[in-house]
Amino acid sequence: MNEFSLIQRFFTSGGVSRDDVVLGVGDDGAVVRCSPDQEWVMTSDILLAGRHFPKATTAYDVAYKALAVNLSDLAAMGAEPAWASLQLVLPEADERWLSDFARGFYELAKGYDLQLVGGDTVRGPLAVGLHLCGGVPTGKALTRGGAQSGDLIYVTGSVGDAALGLGILQGTIDLAQNHHPQLIHRLNRPTPRVQEGIVLRDRASAAIDLSDGLVADLGHILSSSGVGANIELGRVPVSDAYEAYLQGGGDWAFALSHGDDYELCFTLPPEHAVAVQEDFASLACPLRQIGTIEPGAGLRIRQMDGSLYRSDRRGFDHFSQ
Amino acid sequence: MNEFSLIQRFFTSGGVSRDDVVLGVGDDGAVVRCSPDQEWVMTSDILLAGRHFPKATTAYDVAYKALAVNLSDLAAMGAEPAWASLQLVLPEADERWLSDFARGFYELAKGYDLQLVGGDTVRGPLAVGLHLCGGVPTGKALTRGGAQSGDLIYVTGSVGDAALGLGILQGTIDLAQNHHPQLIHRLNRPTPRVQEGIVLRDRASAAIDLSDGLVADLGHILSSSGVGANIELGRVPVSDAYEAYLQGGGDWAFALSHGDDYELCFTLPPEHAVAVQEDFASLACPLRQIGTIEPGAGLRIRQMDGSLYRSDRRGFDHFSQ
Repeated sequence: MNEFSLIQRFFTSGGVSRDDVVLGVGDDGAVVRCSPDQEWVMTSDILLAGRHFPKATTAYDVAYKALAVNLSDLAAMGAEPAWASLQLVLPEADERWLSDFARGFYELAKGYDLQLVGGDTVRGPLAVGLHLCGGVPTGKALTRGGAQSGDLIYVTGSVGDAALGLGILQGTIDLAQNHHPQLIHRLNRPTPRVQEGIVLRDRASAAIDLSDGLVADLGHILSSSGVGANIELGRVPVSDAYEAYLQGGGDWAFALSHGDDYELCFTLPPEHAVAVQEDFASLACPLRQIGTIEPGAGLRIRQMDGSLYRSDRRGFDHFSQ
Repeated sequence: MNEFSLIQRFFTSGGVSRDDVVLGVGDDGAVVRCSPDQEWVMTSDILLAGRHFPKATTAYDVAYKALAVNLSDLAAMGAEPAWASLQLVLPEADERWLSDFARGFYELAKGYDLQLVGGDTVRGPLAVGLHLCGGVPTGKALTRGGAQSGDLIYVTGSVGDAALGLGILQGTIDLAQNHHPQLIHRLNRPTPRVQEGIVLRDRASAAIDLSDGLVADLGHILSSSGVGANIELGRVPVSDAYEAYLQGGGDWAFALSHGDDYELCFTLPPEHAVAVQEDFASLACPLRQIGTIEPGAGLRIRQMDGSLYRSDRRGFDHFSQ
C-alpha cells in the first residue's frame, strides 16, 4: 500500500460532504467557497506521540483527541467548523491502525459537519497535525483581548480531570478504581465546546480554551486585555473524582496549572450573565462563575479563608524542562 | 525562553501585513476576510529532517524549502498566496536557529505577499508543517483532471537537479565541482512557479507540480483526466549539469523519477500554445513541450531512436521501502 492509496482509501470519504467544498482531497490543494458575510477562523495544532498523548493511546483516541483539540480552538473563537486538513506522520502504513484512526476522526467530524479536504502522510515518529477553518459572521469572532474591569469570569465543565487521567496511566496518581474510566476518557476524548462558543459570540468580551491550564490561559486573557483578575479557589469547578483526589491529600495544581481539559474560559459583562446561563443550561453544559476582572494587573487566587493561593506552575510549556 | 515568547519573538512580524487579515498570530486562531468573487485553495505539507531535507541543512534553507514546497502547490492550482500557518517541531529552543529560520521564511514570503497568521511550536525531532491558503477567481482553479487528447504537455525549468544535488551531498554522485553549488542550491531553494501558475489559469487544461517526479506526477494528471500520453525523452528539459552527468554515464532516472524539483507540468490545448509561450518568455521562465496527450491510457516515453524507454522507479513514495 503506497502513500497515494493510503490517503484515498481512508480519507476521501467519511460521510461529510459540504456544499462549499468545490474540490476535496486528491489534487495539489483543496478549493473552497466562502460566504460573503462571513470571516474565517484558521487554527492548527500538531500532537506528538509521547508528548501530547501517551504512546499506548489507541488510533481511534489519537484521532479523536487531535481533532477535539483543534475544534476547541475554533470554539474559543466562536467559529463554526467547516474544513480540515490533516498531516499524518506514521512509523508504518498499518491498515488496521489507519482504519481505527479514520473512525475516530469521522466520529467527531460528522457531528460538526467538518469535511476533510486535504492531507499528507509521511513516514516518521507518530504525530498528527491538523489545520481547521471555521466561519463566523463578520466582526463576531471572539478573542482574548476584550475583557474589561467588572466582567465576570466563567469556566465550562470541570478542570483537572485530564491531568488526573494521565497520572493514572503513568502510575503516579493513587485514586479509587471506580474513578479511572471517566478520567482516562476525559484525557483521550475531550469535548470541544463548539456550540457554547457560538452562543457566546455576541456576549463574551473575551474567550480562550483551556489547553495550557487555567492559570496560564486566563493569564493570556488578562495580558491581551490589559487587565487583572480575582478568582476564588473554592469556585473552580472540579469533578467528583477530583474532589476525591483532594480529600485524599491531592492539591489544586492539576486543576489550575495542567492543561488538556479543553474547557472554555471566558469573560462576560454582567448584563449578559442570565441569558448565557440559560443558554448553557439548554446545551446541558455546566458553567461556573469563578471570579471577576479587575483593573490591576495580575491574577489573584483567593482561598476559602480569604488568603492568597500561590500557584507555582504556570501552565504547560513545550520548551521548559 | 518559553513557547509563547518564541512564537511572538520570531513570528509575529516579518514585514508582511495584508488588509484581509483581521487578526494574526497570538490568539486561539487567526481571522481572515475573503473576497466575494474568489475561491480559496488550501494546501499543506510537512517536511521531516533526514527524510525531506538532509539533517545538516541550514535553518534558513529548511524554512525556505518548506515554504517553497507549499507555494509550489498553490502555483499548481493557479492560486495567489495569501495566508500561512506554521507548525514547528524543534529539538530545542535555539534562538540563533530560529532567527535564521525566520529570515529564510520571510525572504520568500515577502515576495509573494504571504502573511504568517498562526503557528504552533512543540519539542520533538525537527519537522516543519505548513498550511497555506491562496485565492483564485471563482471557477478558475487549475486541477489535474482536465487534460484532453491532443493537448500539449509542458514542463517548466529543468528536472533532476535536486536529485543530483542530494546525491552530491550524500557522496553518491561523482560530478565536476563546478556544478555543485548550482545543484545544491536547487535542492535547498526550489523556485515556486507562482506567477506562471497564475498565467495558466485560463489556458491550461490540467496542472501539477513536480514533487514526486515527472513520471509519477504526470501519471496523476493522466489518471485524474482519464487519458494517456506520449513524451519524448530527448525533449525532457535538463540543466547543463545534468547533461554533464548523462555524458559521464549517468541515466535519466533522477530526471524522470525523483521529485523535489517543484517545476510545473501542465497540459495546454494547442490554440493556447503561442500565447503561453510568450507569457512565459516575459516571466523569464524556461518552458519545454515534451509530448502530447493521447486517448489510450498509460504513459509512453520514446527515446531518440523511437523505442520505448522503461522507467522502473515510479516516484517518491513515503511508505514504499
